[in-house]
Amino acid sequence: MAKTYRDILKWGDKRETQLDDGTLHVIKEKFGYSDTELKHKHLTGNQEIIIKKSCSLKETILDEFTQIVGKENIETSDFERANHSFGKYYTDLVKLRKGEIETPPDAVLYPKNDEDIVQILAICNKNKIAVTPIGGQSSVTRGVETPQGGISLDLTRYLNKVLEVNEINHTVRVQTGMFGPAFEEYLNNYGIKYSCGHFPQSFEYSTVGGWLAAKGAGQASTGYGKIEDMVLSVKVVTPKGVIHTKTYPASAQGWDIHPIFIGSEGSLGVITEVTMKIRKYQPENTRFTSFIFKDFETAVTAMRTVMQSGIGVPHLFRISDPEETEIAFKTKNFEGTFADKFLNFKGFQSGKRCLMFVAVEGSKSYTKQVVSSIKKIAKKHKAFSTGAKPTKKWLEQRYSSAYLRDPLMDIGVMTDTLETAVLWDNLIPLWKAVRKYLKSRDKTVAMVHISHVYENGANLYFTFLSPMKKGNEIEEYREYHKGIIETIQANNGSLSHHHGVGRTLAPWMEQELGTKSIELMQAIKDHLDPNGIMNPGNTLGLKP
Amino acid sequence: MAKTYRDILKWGDKRETQLDDGTLHVIKEKFGYSDTELKHKHLTGNQEIIIKKSCSLKETILDEFTQIVGKENIETSDFERANHSFGKYYTDLVKLRKGEIETPPDAVLYPKNDEDIVQILAICNKNKIAVTPIGGQSSVTRGVETPQGGISLDLTRYLNKVLEVNEINHTVRVQTGMFGPAFEEYLNNYGIKYSCGHFPQSFEYSTVGGWLAAKGAGQASTGYGKIEDMVLSVKVVTPKGVIHTKTYPASAQGWDIHPIFIGSEGSLGVITEVTMKIRKYQPENTRFTSFIFKDFETAVTAMRTVMQSGIGVPHLFRISDPEETEIAFKTKNFEGTFADKFLNFKGFQSGKRCLMFVAVEGSKSYTKQVVSSIKKIAKKHKAFSTGAKPTKKWLEQRYSSAYLRDPLMDIGVMTDTLETAVLWDNLIPLWKAVRKYLKSRDKTVAMVHISHVYENGANLYFTFLSPMKKGNEIEEYREYHKGIIETIQANNGSLSHHHGVGRTLAPWMEQELGTKSIELMQAIKDHLDPNGIMNPGNTLGLKP
Repeated sequence: MAKTYRDILKWGDKRETQLDDGTLHVIKEKFGYSDTELKHKHLTGNQEIIIKKSCSLKETILDEFTQIVGKENIETSDFERANHSFGKYYTDLVKLRKGEIETPPDAVLYPKNDEDIVQILAICNKNKIAVTPIGGQSSVTRGVETPQGGISLDLTRYLNKVLEVNEINHTVRVQTGMFGPAFEEYLNNYGIKYSCGHFPQSFEYSTVGGWLAAKGAGQASTGYGKIEDMVLSVKVVTPKGVIHTKTYPASAQGWDIHPIFIGSEGSLGVITEVTMKIRKYQPENTRFTSFIFKDFETAVTAMRTVMQSGIGVPHLFRISDPEETEIAFKTKNFEGTFADKFLNFKGFQSGKRCLMFVAVEGSKSYTKQVVSSIKKIAKKHKAFSTGAKPTKKWLEQRYSSAYLRDPLMDIGVMTDTLETAVLWDNLIPLWKAVRKYLKSRDKTVAMVHISHVYENGANLYFTFLSPMKKGNEIEEYREYHKGIIETIQANNGSLSHHHGVGRTLAPWMEQELGTKSIELMQAIKDHLDPNGIMNPGNTLGLKP
Repeated sequence: MAKTYRDILKWGDKRETQLDDGTLHVIKEKFGYSDTELKHKHLTGNQEIIIKKSCSLKETILDEFTQIVGKENIETSDFERANHSFGKYYTDLVKLRKGEIETPPDAVLYPKNDEDIVQILAICNKNKIAVTPIGGQSSVTRGVETPQGGISLDLTRYLNKVLEVNEINHTVRVQTGMFGPAFEEYLNNYGIKYSCGHFPQSFEYSTVGGWLAAKGAGQASTGYGKIEDMVLSVKVVTPKGVIHTKTYPASAQGWDIHPIFIGSEGSLGVITEVTMKIRKYQPENTRFTSFIFKDFETAVTAMRTVMQSGIGVPHLFRISDPEETEIAFKTKNFEGTFADKFLNFKGFQSGKRCLMFVAVEGSKSYTKQVVSSIKKIAKKHKAFSTGAKPTKKWLEQRYSSAYLRDPLMDIGVMTDTLETAVLWDNLIPLWKAVRKYLKSRDKTVAMVHISHVYENGANLYFTFLSPMKKGNEIEEYREYHKGIIETIQANNGSLSHHHGVGRTLAPWMEQELGTKSIELMQAIKDHLDPNGIMNPGNTLGLKP
């Protein structure tokens, strides 16, 4: 059977999710959709894939590639080229559904090892052919597309193995094309059992290399840190040669080189191997709790107090703002129950109240102490304790909520997520300003949470749902999105906390970092990639 | 009264320490020094300072500088030039004692603010005049000397203030010329009371800027991290312009720029301002404990277990190896006491046993839990618990032990410290190899400790004392020192954990980092400092 665009945009076969009744109920209520409207599918992407732009690489070049990787590891079919044209950004999916693929890669290469990559980069550098390193393609920032064609270098077929676990050092050496679930399963079953500690929402469809390249954060980042806190050393193939940093617990021999590659988004070279910290896997000790606070401001103050009191840190630590809390309650059919009425009666009013989730990992005594300390702080801030269950329930659907985007788009809902990091004293003003902007669009659901927490501030994560303007899906999204970014910037939020920059946020990079900083980044790029072949086309706001 | 070289080499007036009886007793025993020999002072540095090399800056340049900083903030006297010629490296002190100052700065400038520095760098860049940023001059790696003359840019006179404490964000914005004690005192007395968390042995004579520039670590680093873990943003004046990074708790907008300046050792620009994390100052909650282990290997295993079990972390965490433990006992007149005999009887034999110090900071419940968990782990490793007192005693003399170097050199003792970072599985082999090398020199006391601890490894800190070969003090030191570095490198230790590189370790940098990494560092240097004026002369192994 001919492959369709839908085969590309969906998250694997088992992930073609249906909207549950709770979610459908909310959609109907908020957007006024009728049952008939809900049955009408919009932009399904069920067309057969046809790539108009033919492969522009010379036969001699393709022969050279074939000699390196073998015939079976070079693909120029329409499907494979289409399949490597986009990440999972909202407009990527709209374009796929519309069958608009303007700049596919000329070919997809599956290198077998680092040496293949060295040779491929040498050819590409000599012939000025663009190279885009590919992992799980879950980028939501247009980080993996190929505006200059060239090759997609897909590491997931071969460079997907754990090379070494060191149980004395608590380190793992892993190839970057390995997917999250395989990596974690390997560690969970090794020796006395370990965990990688990194669980982004994209976990099931993202690779170790993608985590580094886009500088990701996982759900347990409040305890274990972001990816940059977990990496001890890297091996990177650049057009200028291979950089392989040494592994030390810490050092003071000039500035560290390896952090330059964390967040480089393929613009400097291909990260092929990484040495990371691992932790004892001891889920039997993990403790969960949850609270409801009377309002967002109080919940944030309690959260900040937890992070600044020297009590240790939780690993999972989240607050949903009032609208996200309300939607969660609605979709779980909590609204109108006795418990709901009781909470309202007690002053935890719907539309104001906020859910907080907590999970603490580590030794028995550590998790007990931290949870007990958090409970005391929550109590001081008049929180209502709702026990372990809500946090456990949230964890059960932790990854699958992302897969709702496809059925939502099917019924004509525009939906996306954006995130920022902000110091504590800017958090509430930024939250209010972005909420106000989001709500300036008619019939828009705006859910906000905090999910990555630090001594000095936290992230804010915005999810919006709004009816699409049919026929003008991309332009109206772009305009709305632009306003969100500008509101974040005007309110002292970072351009991104963990999604990265790609080409989506590139236009704001110089203003964000300052001319001198972007010039320094460009100088580093120009040194390592003098011909500008690595993920070119404005990635990170860099030239070319 | 004319100023002498000794006025420069000593650590402030109050720090001209006498050797205590315990230390003298050890010296006599180990080196066979007689009382007469002890009275004979060697290389005292009591000569009057005379600088032969006159200031080579043109009058017009000096006039330009004077117009910027004012007459009172430009010094060309022999004393000031001599006083800015060296740090506190062993050979620096030997040279000062001998009155050998070959390449003093031409002038010392005390800028009043960032704008002065911008103007000074513009003049120096135009005229290719070397600029060496100066903080507390406590470098032990030849990081602040001026092989090409030029100007020493001393930030300690004016750029020494806290600019802002933010009690919501737990951040401080501070100028880099501020000394440790003034900084900590300011924080201890601000609002609800804070601490900077960074206490290197040089604390009393080092500045915030020096901490960053040399990538330092303090005694509480196991809990609070090294300086690179505390810095949120920097302001740096480079010959290419001012880079001022934004302050976020975390972000993902390309790779971070600010870490490039941490460990830059003045080679890229002048760090003038930094935003750092601060912590609640709650010493009333700090818990101390200490242990004696039967041997070094077991102590290290217990320490590693503490770091890898998810119990939280101690802040101060140290092990002294058997010889350091023995010397500590000797100088404290513990040897031969009833307690000593009891310990030997119980199997904690002198020459094998090792001291461990622990202090935990934070909330009451956190410190209680962590100390209790450490005690359990220590017990499993058959440690003898020696309570809070030894750790408290050690803390009392924490800074002053460094000042013993001067009276030791007075009586002809060669002494220095070197340090490295190493993964756990290389720690014992490295410790043994370096000990063996140190002991290959006749009559050498070699004391080793671990003082900065991580999940994945730790540092090793080597102190040696040995009689000088009089007349050939520098050459024989250099040869011995070279062997230590080479032994560390051959055993997979980093060149440095927190002392930095300067010019002392520069010759090993390319081998250590690899050609491609040092080329990348050079490209960054060349971009920011195209005329090579910033701390030139092989700093970090960079050109010029």
